[in-house]
Order: sequence, then structure tokens, then C-alpha cells
Amino acid sequence: MNRISQTKRRDILKIRFDLIAYNGAAYHGWQRQVRELDTVQQLIERAASRLVGHPVIIFGASRTDAGVHAEGQSANFYTTNMSIPMRGLRRAMNSKLPLDIAVRSAVEVDKSFNASRSATGKTYRYRIHVAPTRPVSLHRQVYHYWRTLDIAAMQQAADRLVGTHDFRGFASSAEKRKSTVRTISRCELTEVGQEVHVTVAGDGFLYKMVRNIVGTLIEVGRGRYSADQINLIITSRQRRNAGPTAPPDGLTLMALHYE
Amino acid sequence: MNRISQTKRRDILKIRFDLIAYNGAAYHGWQRQVRELDTVQQLIERAASRLVGHPVIIFGASRTDAGVHAEGQSANFYTTNMSIPMRGLRRAMNSKLPLDIAVRSAVEVDKSFNASRSATGKTYRYRIHVAPTRPVSLHRQVYHYWRTLDIAAMQQAADRLVGTHDFRGFASSAEKRKSTVRTISRCELTEVGQEVHVTVAGDGFLYKMVRNIVGTLIEVGRGRYSADQINLIITSRQRRNAGPTAPPDGLTLMALHYE
Repeated sequence: MNRISQTKRRDILKIRFDLIAYNGAAYHGWQRQVRELDTVQQLIERAASRLVGHPVIIFGASRTDAGVHAEGQSANFYTTNMSIPMRGLRRAMNSKLPLDIAVRSAVEVDKSFNASRSATGKTYRYRIHVAPTRPVSLHRQVYHYWRTLDIAAMQQAADRLVGTHDFRGFASSAEKRKSTVRTISRCELTEVGQEVHVTVAGDGFLYKMVRNIVGTLIEVGRGRYSADQINLIITSRQRRNAGPTAPPDGLTLMALHYE
Repeated sequence: MNRISQTKRRDILKIRFDLIAYNGAAYHGWQRQVRELDTVQQLIERAASRLVGHPVIIFGASRTDAGVHAEGQSANFYTTNMSIPMRGLRRAMNSKLPLDIAVRSAVEVDKSFNASRSATGKTYRYRIHVAPTRPVSLHRQVYHYWRTLDIAAMQQAADRLVGTHDFRGFASSAEKRKSTVRTISRCELTEVGQEVHVTVAGDGFLYKMVRNIVGTLIEVGRGRYSADQINLIITSRQRRNAGPTAPPDGLTLMALHYE
């Protein structure tokens, strides 16, 4: 029942939700599932559909995995309801969304805008909580690492990731895209209290690439790999040379980049 | 099947768990329920029973409500297993507990120790997150307040709580204890980033007293009550004169006090 296809283009509005934030702990990822599982996309579609008075499909910029969080997801949808007040749309959306999902911007956009295809890059942040005991108040928000990490060594390895490389060795074997060449513009470690944050920005990321990068950097930090391992993973293109996939809990999609 | 009562007292060890931390978001409070609900007490009992090889009952110092967190809960239990290694007991417990519950200390104690009755007081902290938008990453860890709060006015009101008073007006109507006189030794507001923390310490608290104090202080912070309202609530002993009960999400039992 796609009402939009039956309507003339001039009778359609394209709306962009930006800075969508969610706590991924309770969700089976962004993408709508055939099975009855709660996903962020479904809940935003449900709220938007109620607001505009007809079913809508929300197109997100990034399909975050189960348990992964967002502060800067971006999405768009079409509506044939020409009378919805743009002022107050953000607030109306939030009143219909669960408390662990928020839309921080809602504006009408040109129909040429596409949250996914118009994006020129993304920034992720990964939180590693380094402490001998469990941070129970940060349950499912961080990756808890028990021992100490050599941050300087991790930053040296991170520096080797920056640039345009074939990241096949950092991708899940489920990654099916032909080109595995991507450009990482930034890979920085910062210490924030008991946490180490890994911030990674680039023009695009392969499936599980950020979590595999973090898992590899942790192996460097605990002394199992040297920074040279990064070059080996890149040149060999072999997933088995990289570290384990870091759990989703620590990962947040911070921003989509647009021109 | 109480094996302990069939055993001579000298064949019993009393063990104290201290600095028990838990994220209350997923639990129906501390206390074991007749219905099949997950409570913190039940999960700790299950873990300890597996460790010592017989059913145990864990006596906690404080019965936190559903959704309330802890960093410093205290508890004790008896075991007839004289061969459990005290060294490593803490770690063994944590390996059997869910990741949102942690025991930070496990020691043998004198049988005269009673986590509840030996306590001379408690400290609670309440986190209010003051921001125009929802802090999704802190879902169920803070109380989100949208508008601004007059912290100085709240501290003035908090000062009036310190001392020995009849706190009947701050207790839930479900509070059935005869004496409602308690001593509050400390009630302090601190600003931590976007959060206001209310730290309250005292010799004991009535049912929902901390959350009613916080709800009242918020009414002061938004300008609905003056500091004089505190005196009115104390002298009138009327719950209706106090503010609404603040939600459990922001509350953490920080410490039990012992001599």
C-alpha cells in the first residue's frame, strides 16, 4: 500500500531527521526485521506514520548492528501530508518515541537529498572502560576491559590506519561489496576518566570494520601485536591476521558527514 | 530445606558481601519476589548457592526499589561449607553473576555482624540530568529534567533538611513504622557536567523518603516552592505538602555506614 507512488511528485514532501540518537541496548539494530523484533527503524517509522497519518518508510544513512548506539544517525522519508507543521515536528516525534530514542532535528529537504547516498563520510566512537571491576552503571554502554592498555602503542598503530587502503582484512567475511578500499581520515585515542575513546572517521566502513579495528587496537594495547600488524592486515587482506571483533556495546555512530 | 538450622553453630561460616553494585534498570528491586521476577537478591542467592553447594539466603542491608541502582549495597549469608576458599570468592561470585551486578568485597565476618542491623546509616545519590534533549545513553540511569533548575535555591532548601526531624511528610503513605523521626547528616547538591547530583546521608530513611526529598527539591529548583516549604512539610507531617516522588532511575544506594 504505497500511497506515495500514486501521488504526483509535487504533492510530496521530503523530510529529513538529523542527529537521531538512540541507546542500542534494547534494540535489534537499526534495520526493520521481518520477524517481530524491535528495531530503531521500525519505531521511528511507527511514530512518523502516526504523525503524518499514513504509512511511511524511513531511509536511514547507516544500518547500525544490534546493541550499537547513535548520537548522529540521519534519515529521510516522504509524506503526502502537506499540512504537517514543520515547526514542532521534532517535538511531536519525540513525544511518540520511546525514551531511549530521540530525534534532534526535523526539516524539509530538497528531494535530491538522500541521507545515505548524499553522505560523504561517517564518524564513530568506541568506548573502552578500563578498570579492574565492572562498571555496572555503564552496562551495555561500554566495553569493559579488565587489564591495562598501552595507549601510546595503540595510537601508533591507529596512525597506520589513516589514509586510503584496502581494508578487506578488517571486514567481516560476510562483507560482499566488491571494492574494499576506503579512506580513513582520522583514528584517535583519547583518555576520558577511566575510559579510552577510539574515534574513527572515514568516507565509508565495511561490515564490522570499526569493531574489528578496535579489537585489533586492543591486541596492540595488551602487547600481543606491534603496530606492524596493521600493515600486515592491510597487505595480506586476511581477516585472520586482525584481532577479534570488539562487542557492539562500546560503539556509537557519532555523525554522518554531508557537503 | 534449611540445612543451616540442622547444623551446629561452630560449623557455620558467616560471609559478608560488601560494595555490592548493580544496575537496577533490568530488575524488580533488591528483594526476592514470590512471583517469578528477576530481583538482585535472587540472582546473588543463586550465584552464592552454586558456589557453596547448598541453598543460601542472602540478607541485604537495604531493600532498594525496582529501578534503583547500587554502588554500596551490603549483605551477609551463612554457609555450612567450611572448605570454600575465601581468597578468590569475590571473583568466583562475579563469574556467576550477570554483568550488571558485581560484588566488590567478600570476607568472613563475626556472627554478630548483621548487614542491616549493624549499619548506622546510609548514603544515597540522585542524578538529575538537566538538558533540553533526552540523554539516550543514560536511559534509566538518570532523571531527565528539561528545564533549568535554581541550584542555589535547592541547596538552601536542602540545608533545612539537615538535622533530626520528623520526616513523616516525606514518607510514602505505605510507610508503616511507628517512629518517623530520622537524622539527616548531609544533603548536598553538586553540579557534574550536565547533571545535578543530590547526595543525602542519614541514620535511616523512610519508604520513598529520598525520592520524595528530591521531588520536593526539584519543585524548589523550578520556583514552585520556597525553602520554607521544607519546614512546612516537617511540621505539618503531611505528604501532600511535599513534591512528587522522583522516579527511581536517578537513585543509587552509594554506601552503608558501619562503626
